[in-house]
Amino acid sequence: MAQAQIGVTGLAVMGANLARNLARHGHAVAVHNRSQSRTKALMEQHGDEGTFVACETPEELVAALERPRRILIMVKAGAPTDAVIEEFAPLLEPGDMLVDGGNAHFLDTRRREAALRERGIHFVGAGVSGGEEGALLGPSIMPGGSRESYEALGPLLEDIAAKVDGVPCCTHIGPDGAGHFVKMVHNGIEYADMQLIAEAYDLLRQGLGLSPAELADVFEEWNKGELSSYLIEITAEVLRQVDATTGRPLVDVIADRAEQKGTGRWTVQIALDLGVPVSGIAEAVFARSVSGHADLREAARGLPGPSGVPAGPVGEGFAEDVRRALYASKIIAYAQGFDQIRAGSAEYGWDVDPGSLATIWRGGCIIRAVFLDRIREAYEGETPPVTLLTAPLFAEALGLAQDSWRRVVAKAAELGIPAPGFSTALAYYDSLRAERLPAALIQGQRDFFGAHTYQRTDREGSFHTLWSGDRTEIGA
Amino acid sequence: MAQAQIGVTGLAVMGANLARNLARHGHAVAVHNRSQSRTKALMEQHGDEGTFVACETPEELVAALERPRRILIMVKAGAPTDAVIEEFAPLLEPGDMLVDGGNAHFLDTRRREAALRERGIHFVGAGVSGGEEGALLGPSIMPGGSRESYEALGPLLEDIAAKVDGVPCCTHIGPDGAGHFVKMVHNGIEYADMQLIAEAYDLLRQGLGLSPAELADVFEEWNKGELSSYLIEITAEVLRQVDATTGRPLVDVIADRAEQKGTGRWTVQIALDLGVPVSGIAEAVFARSVSGHADLREAARGLPGPSGVPAGPVGEGFAEDVRRALYASKIIAYAQGFDQIRAGSAEYGWDVDPGSLATIWRGGCIIRAVFLDRIREAYEGETPPVTLLTAPLFAEALGLAQDSWRRVVAKAAELGIPAPGFSTALAYYDSLRAERLPAALIQGQRDFFGAHTYQRTDREGSFHTLWSGDRTEIGA
Repeated sequence: MAQAQIGVTGLAVMGANLARNLARHGHAVAVHNRSQSRTKALMEQHGDEGTFVACETPEELVAALERPRRILIMVKAGAPTDAVIEEFAPLLEPGDMLVDGGNAHFLDTRRREAALRERGIHFVGAGVSGGEEGALLGPSIMPGGSRESYEALGPLLEDIAAKVDGVPCCTHIGPDGAGHFVKMVHNGIEYADMQLIAEAYDLLRQGLGLSPAELADVFEEWNKGELSSYLIEITAEVLRQVDATTGRPLVDVIADRAEQKGTGRWTVQIALDLGVPVSGIAEAVFARSVSGHADLREAARGLPGPSGVPAGPVGEGFAEDVRRALYASKIIAYAQGFDQIRAGSAEYGWDVDPGSLATIWRGGCIIRAVFLDRIREAYEGETPPVTLLTAPLFAEALGLAQDSWRRVVAKAAELGIPAPGFSTALAYYDSLRAERLPAALIQGQRDFFGAHTYQRTDREGSFHTLWSGDRTEIGA
Repeated sequence: MAQAQIGVTGLAVMGANLARNLARHGHAVAVHNRSQSRTKALMEQHGDEGTFVACETPEELVAALERPRRILIMVKAGAPTDAVIEEFAPLLEPGDMLVDGGNAHFLDTRRREAALRERGIHFVGAGVSGGEEGALLGPSIMPGGSRESYEALGPLLEDIAAKVDGVPCCTHIGPDGAGHFVKMVHNGIEYADMQLIAEAYDLLRQGLGLSPAELADVFEEWNKGELSSYLIEITAEVLRQVDATTGRPLVDVIADRAEQKGTGRWTVQIALDLGVPVSGIAEAVFARSVSGHADLREAARGLPGPSGVPAGPVGEGFAEDVRRALYASKIIAYAQGFDQIRAGSAEYGWDVDPGSLATIWRGGCIIRAVFLDRIREAYEGETPPVTLLTAPLFAEALGLAQDSWRRVVAKAAELGIPAPGFSTALAYYDSLRAERLPAALIQGQRDFFGAHTYQRTDREGSFHTLWSGDRTEIGA
C-alpha cells in the first residue's frame, strides 16, 4: 500500500510544521514519531490540512512510501540523529533517500553520507532556516548530497520553500556536507548581524537617550531603506513590545544574557581551520559569551570608565552615522561569511555557487533581506568579485559610509559603549586595504625568537637573520 | 650498563639543545635520532660539554638508561609523535616515563596519557617555551602528567629551566594534558601580545611619522617601565636592524605576511568550546590570517578611506597614549588567557594554580616579563581575583590608562590604521563593566524568530512571548 511521497520522522514543532507544509502543497506525507502522542496530536489538530499517513513504527513509515523512498529526519543533532539513521537504514533499499533537516555539524554529515553511500542510500544533509513559522509557511532550504538525490527531492523541497519573485528559496548546494556547511555559515552571519543591530540599538539608546519605543520607530524607518530585512523588522517589533506585568518595555525586563546553541561557535572554529578571518562572527559569539559570564560581569562592574551617557549633546547626525556604520559593518560580516563558503567549497570540492546561495537566502531564512539581492547581483556579474567588498555597489556603499563609520567607532570608544562588532569590521576593512601591515614586524619577532624565517619583498626565498650571532642574513 | 639519567630522542635544534642543557648541568644524557647523522653531529660538536651516550637504536637508548627510565621525545607533533611512542613503549617497563616536549594538542596528550597509563607507563606532555636559545640556556617548562612522574622528572627539569630570583621556571601543572593546555594558551597570549606591539608600532609609525630606528628608541625606553618584557626588547632589536643588501630598515624589507603554526588557532577553538571570550587572541590570529590573504588584499587595495597619515599634527602625548593603550590591552589579553586556563582546569579537573603558572612564565619563555610577577602577586593575594582586571594593581592601571586607551582607539579609526587588538580589548573591557548589555535585545530577537525563550530580570523561569499570536507572555 505504498502511497505517500515523503515521510517525516520526528514531529516536534519543526518536523510537524514541515510535514504540514508538504501536505498543504498536495503531497501525501507519512508521519512518524518515537512517542506516538505527537503523531496523534498532529493528526487531530492538522489532519485535515492534507493527506497524512500516521505510522507507529519505522517499518510502517518505510512501507507507506513510494520508491525511491524519501524520509526527512527532524530530530536533535548528534547521537539522536545517528540513532534514527541506524533505525531506518536497514529497512531501506538502494536509491532511497534519508534527509537530515536538523542543524548537524557538516563533518558529521560527511561521515554519515560516506557510510550510507556504501550501503547504496543517499544521505542528504539539508540546512533549513526560517524557524517554526518558516517551516510551516516557507523556509529557505539548503540541501547537500548527491545531484541524483536532488532530482528526486528538489521538486518537493522547492514546492514548500519560500518564493521571492517566483524563485524558490531552495537549490542544490553541493555534495555531501555542503548543505549543512552553508547553513552553519548562514547562522554565523546571523549572529554577526544580530550583534551589529544590538550595538546600533545600544549606541542610540545611550548616546541619544532614546526610549525603546522611539527606537522602534527608528528601526521601522531603517527597514524602508538599504537595511530592509527580517532582522531589522523584528527588532522594531521587539522594541515596541511592552511587558504586561510591569508596564515597562519588554527589552528592559529581559535578562541581558544572550544564549547560543553552537552553530556560531562552529562557524568560527571551522573558519580558523580554513584560515578565513571571520572576525565579525567571532566577536558576535564572544559578545554573547561575555553577556553570560555573570561572575566576571559582577566582579568588573565597578571598574573605571565613562558611563555611556555623553556629557554634552551628541551631534544630530549621530543616528544616521550609526545607520551607515551598521550597513558598512554588515557588508563586512557578509563578505567574511561568503569568503568562508568559498574556502570551504574549495577545501571539500563542493563547487558551491555563491550567487545561487544569495538567491535562496533572499526569502524564508532569518537573514533574508533586500541586501541578499545585491549580493546575488554582485556574484552574477561578469567578473565575480574576489571579495564582496570590491563589488562596485558595496565599494560605493563603503565609501559613502566611511566617515560615519569612523565617527561611530570613535564615539563608542569615547563614551564607553562596547561596539566590538562595529570596531572589528572597521579594523578588518582598514587591514585589507592597507598598503603595508605591521605583520612584517611580527615576522621579524618570530625570526628573532624562533628562527621561523621570513620572506622578503625584493626577492624569492626564505631568510633568517643570525640574531644571536653577527646579525647577517642567511638563506633558509 | 645502565648509566644515563635521561634519554632524548629527536635531535633537531630543540632536542639537541635540551640534551646539551641537561649534559651541561651534569646529567648523563643518552641521545638518539632516527637518522644517525644528527647524533654524530651532536657528539662531534658538543660531545665535550658533558656526558653523552650516543645510541643508534631505540633499544640501545632504553638499555642505556637507569630505571625508572626517563625519555624525552622531541619530534614533530602529530603522527611522528605517535610513531615514536609506538616504537618505544614496547621496550619500556611499568614506572618508566615518556615525556613529549613538542607542541602537541592537549587532547592528543590526554589520549596518549590514558593509553600509556593502561600499560603502566607515565606519559608526560610537557610544554617547553623559549625557542632554541631557551632550550639551551634555560626554558620555561610546563610538565603535565602524574604527580608521581613529576617526582622523578622535576629535579632534572627544574635544573635546566630558567631561574628568576632563584626560582626555577618549571612546576608540575596538573594531570594528563594540563601541561600542553597551558602551553597552548601561553602561545595564544603570545600571539595577542605580538599583535598589540605590532599595532602600537603601526600607530606610532604612521601617526607620528617616526622611523624604525626612532621607534627602536621608543621601545627601548618602554622596556624600562611596566611594559618591560622580552617581546618589547626584541621589538627594539628588530626595528633597529638595517638590511645589508638595501640599506633600508629590515622591517621594511620583510614581507608583511605573518605566518602561524597552529597553537594560536587551537587556543581560540578550545576557548570557544569552553565558552571563554578570548577576543584578543582571536583578533591576533585573524590579523595574521588577513596579512596572508594576498588575493583579498590585492583586490581591496583601492577601497576608499584615509591614508593613515594624519592631516594635521597629532598631539604630543600620542606616544604616551599608545604606550598606555598597549599596557591596558595587554592586561585584557592576559586576563582572557588566564580565564581560559581556569575554565580548562575546571573542565578537565586539573586544579591548575594560576599563581604558580605566572611564576614559571616570569623567565625562559617568550612572554617573560616583569608583568608576570604582577600576575603572580594578584593570584597569591588573600582573595584571588575572579578576573585579573579586578586585581587592585591592574584595576588601577586600567583606570590610569583609560583616557589614553580611548583616544588611541578613536584615533586609529579616524586615521584608518587597523587596530583590531586595541579595539577588541577596549570593547571587552566596556562589555564586562556595563550595567546592561544589549544582549537582552538579542534574546528578544531569538524568542521572536525561534521561540528560544528568555529569562526575566524580575523573576525565575523561562518565558516566551506569543509573537505571532496575541503577544501575551507564557511560561516555558
